[in-house]
Amino acid sequence: MAKQKKTPRPRAVTPKGFRDYFGTDVTERSEMLSRIAGVYHRYGFDALESSAVETVEALGKFLPDVDRPNEGVFAWQEDDEDGKGDWLALRYDLTAPLARVYAQHRNDLPTPYRRYAMGPVWRNEKPGPGRFRQFYQCDADTVGTASVAADAEICAMLADCLEEVGIPRGDYVVRVNNRKVLNGVLEAMGVSDMAQQANVLRTIDKFDKVGEAGVRQLLGKGRLDASGAYIDGVGLAPDQAEPVIAFLTSKGADAAETIANLRTAVGAATMGPEGVDELEEIADLLAAAGYGPDRIVIDPSVVRGLGYYTGPVFEAELTFEITDDKGRPRQFGSVAGGGRYDDLVARFTGQKVPAVGVSIGVDRLLAALREKGRVGGESEGPVVVTVMDRDRMDDYQAMVAELRNAGIRAEVYLGNPKNFGNQLKYADRRNSPAAVIEGGEEKARGVVQVKDLILGKKIAESATLEEWKERPSQAEIPRDQLVSHIWKLLTGGG
Amino acid sequence: MAKQKKTPRPRAVTPKGFRDYFGTDVTERSEMLSRIAGVYHRYGFDALESSAVETVEALGKFLPDVDRPNEGVFAWQEDDEDGKGDWLALRYDLTAPLARVYAQHRNDLPTPYRRYAMGPVWRNEKPGPGRFRQFYQCDADTVGTASVAADAEICAMLADCLEEVGIPRGDYVVRVNNRKVLNGVLEAMGVSDMAQQANVLRTIDKFDKVGEAGVRQLLGKGRLDASGAYIDGVGLAPDQAEPVIAFLTSKGADAAETIANLRTAVGAATMGPEGVDELEEIADLLAAAGYGPDRIVIDPSVVRGLGYYTGPVFEAELTFEITDDKGRPRQFGSVAGGGRYDDLVARFTGQKVPAVGVSIGVDRLLAALREKGRVGGESEGPVVVTVMDRDRMDDYQAMVAELRNAGIRAEVYLGNPKNFGNQLKYADRRNSPAAVIEGGEEKARGVVQVKDLILGKKIAESATLEEWKERPSQAEIPRDQLVSHIWKLLTGGG
Repeated sequence: MAKQKKTPRPRAVTPKGFRDYFGTDVTERSEMLSRIAGVYHRYGFDALESSAVETVEALGKFLPDVDRPNEGVFAWQEDDEDGKGDWLALRYDLTAPLARVYAQHRNDLPTPYRRYAMGPVWRNEKPGPGRFRQFYQCDADTVGTASVAADAEICAMLADCLEEVGIPRGDYVVRVNNRKVLNGVLEAMGVSDMAQQANVLRTIDKFDKVGEAGVRQLLGKGRLDASGAYIDGVGLAPDQAEPVIAFLTSKGADAAETIANLRTAVGAATMGPEGVDELEEIADLLAAAGYGPDRIVIDPSVVRGLGYYTGPVFEAELTFEITDDKGRPRQFGSVAGGGRYDDLVARFTGQKVPAVGVSIGVDRLLAALREKGRVGGESEGPVVVTVMDRDRMDDYQAMVAELRNAGIRAEVYLGNPKNFGNQLKYADRRNSPAAVIEGGEEKARGVVQVKDLILGKKIAESATLEEWKERPSQAEIPRDQLVSHIWKLLTGGG
Repeated sequence: MAKQKKTPRPRAVTPKGFRDYFGTDVTERSEMLSRIAGVYHRYGFDALESSAVETVEALGKFLPDVDRPNEGVFAWQEDDEDGKGDWLALRYDLTAPLARVYAQHRNDLPTPYRRYAMGPVWRNEKPGPGRFRQFYQCDADTVGTASVAADAEICAMLADCLEEVGIPRGDYVVRVNNRKVLNGVLEAMGVSDMAQQANVLRTIDKFDKVGEAGVRQLLGKGRLDASGAYIDGVGLAPDQAEPVIAFLTSKGADAAETIANLRTAVGAATMGPEGVDELEEIADLLAAAGYGPDRIVIDPSVVRGLGYYTGPVFEAELTFEITDDKGRPRQFGSVAGGGRYDDLVARFTGQKVPAVGVSIGVDRLLAALREKGRVGGESEGPVVVTVMDRDRMDDYQAMVAELRNAGIRAEVYLGNPKNFGNQLKYADRRNSPAAVIEGGEEKARGVVQVKDLILGKKIAESATLEEWKERPSQAEIPRDQLVSHIWKLLTGGG
């Protein structure tokens, strides 16, 4: 008989490109999302949680970002006796499911339908450093109205969200543009070839980096970049490039001046003036609602990557400086974006349904809050009740119950209590503010020892400071004063 | 040339067995989970959010519930050039991922590791009415300690969670048993055949329904059930069944009496007395912490379906009556359960790691809260600012911004404003407390009309009541008193 092969143990790893989130990584994100949900709610948006799994048919076999491959979802075929089950897939964003939900439930939903959604999405892409295949999105969309008041409202809401989570006014700006204006410029230039249009848009997107002269070169023959590499240009004649330059340099001192400059840049073609009118209306509505250029500006350099935008587009940029990997200062950059898209529901119903939405980059914004010191402090550890006598676990459990009933985070030590040093090491690892000790002798006298571990750490760090010496880091207190003593210690009154 | 086939439109439907959640279905669940997270946190548990996708290898190709088929997950193979990519799957619960996470990160985690997790899980099962293939779980587990103090703590925490979300004391009971006691009974009976053991356990689980006499019949030759069908019995001799009966009828007036009865029932075999000792310790610890039989009881009839439990098991049952589909009163039943499992981490590391956990049935508990009227009131609709003059959208946007800045949920009407009746219908559909109206004439006089829609509904329902007639349902107020007027109206001061 052949020797039986031993089944190898499974590897304890996440699949490539997936990760786990621990402790404050979870709670800080959840707190941030809950604040954003509060703002969305105040603006009249209702929560929607669609299923994570959709039919491939409903999702469409594409990702919204034109720079990404056509595939890129996690998909599988339903089991079925004749092998003809539906293909299902994990959602890759929250917009495609919204289009499906709206088409499915449109008779039961109010029109316009304002909804928000938060949750994980999945992309079947090559993972890389800091690039994961599961991540959170946090969207708000208004479906069923062509009014640019909906666009203006979402820009204002985005500004409110940023301030609500802790980005102070002045540290961010919401920049607004309009795809129709861009299309008007292309029209004015006489560029109708789709590929060439895409090249021009890509060049516009580089304006922030290469400036006016650089854009001129890139629209013409090309340019030598900083690394010495030669970048081929779009190949336009110099005068053909003029409308782009006029467009890109149209940002004025205020919205009115920018609008006037844009009106000149787009000329008389139909699409352009319509887009400028919309921008003007958005600027007026925002001014009336009190959202001035310290929060929201009209900015012609905003392009946004998504191919499906058809009108106003906007993005929120954080303007404070951080230090990049190479130690150079740079602006934090974009944390949210969105725009108007009018064709997504039509896939299902044949009827165009105008819609506008915003998506906040959850991980980016959380990283920004960490940069600003708004989140990411040490986690609040539990008070640890140590075990001096394992036969008196009920005494320790009673202490911990008293503390918890008073709203104090507390634990009894549940590891092997033999080595007392290990219990204090555990308390340290848990970032405990205090350890409670009750041996047989203390029990007999009706007292407990409370070690102030926060103070203990401070003393360890700066042992010479007189101020600490006056406060003992360990106190003997009557057993019946345990809760009040710990309470004082935690609230700094001790 | 063949006529090109038109691509049919995609169907706007969720996959079979999946659903969407709207508005308060989302926010009420999220509020409930956040309260539970608060209790878990107070007990020293830390948040963990593991990836939704695991390797099939790490998950194990099984569901924990022995009554379910061996397969039952959504799985697919990773793309790979040679077709040998890993098989990935959506998690089917939160315990299997915890075992993987603990095995992977055990050197960085405290021991014992108390963690909680909340989120969707997926089961590839035949959907049925009220049975979905994606649903929420909400778990807490303590990994790395064999101390039954961990089990006792989780039972207390479960009671606290139920009260925290709104189940009053007296409307629930946490029932505790021990698998070792059950195994001791089987030992005492001399039943060692696995299949026969399973049959005996299944019979014990029916005790609540068929009573002592019914269990006697089912352990012996069988029994005629209420519908007239004959149910085959386990086939034990009458005296062989005695230990089970002694065990099942061991519940006494208090924990001490139950424990004493159990000690007699299990006899001198090793496993049974060990289990009774553990139950006694749990009862003592809970009594010391103040959790009496009004909240937690030792109850020998608890079996729990999961095959992997090895020691204490417990479940939370809601004891208030509801009316079932057929109009008969019945108890609401189980909303949470858990127990000790010691073998899950060993799959990865080869070393047994003792663990104990609880899982709260999120949908069941939410349904219970709805029964108790704790959640499920009408959703808070937004104040709707109507549009009388579409050229003055900026005036309306300014009003809505003022309201929102005062923390009042508000919207400007963004549909087609032509038909004013539609605007009021929209406000009604949105469950708005008030509609604001400002025509050109009001604008000129510096006033707005505010329709009290809550009052309006009450008047419509009971038009004869004198008390309503005194309060006009529409008021003309100065424009600059809009916010204060609405505030009074919403807070009942109006």
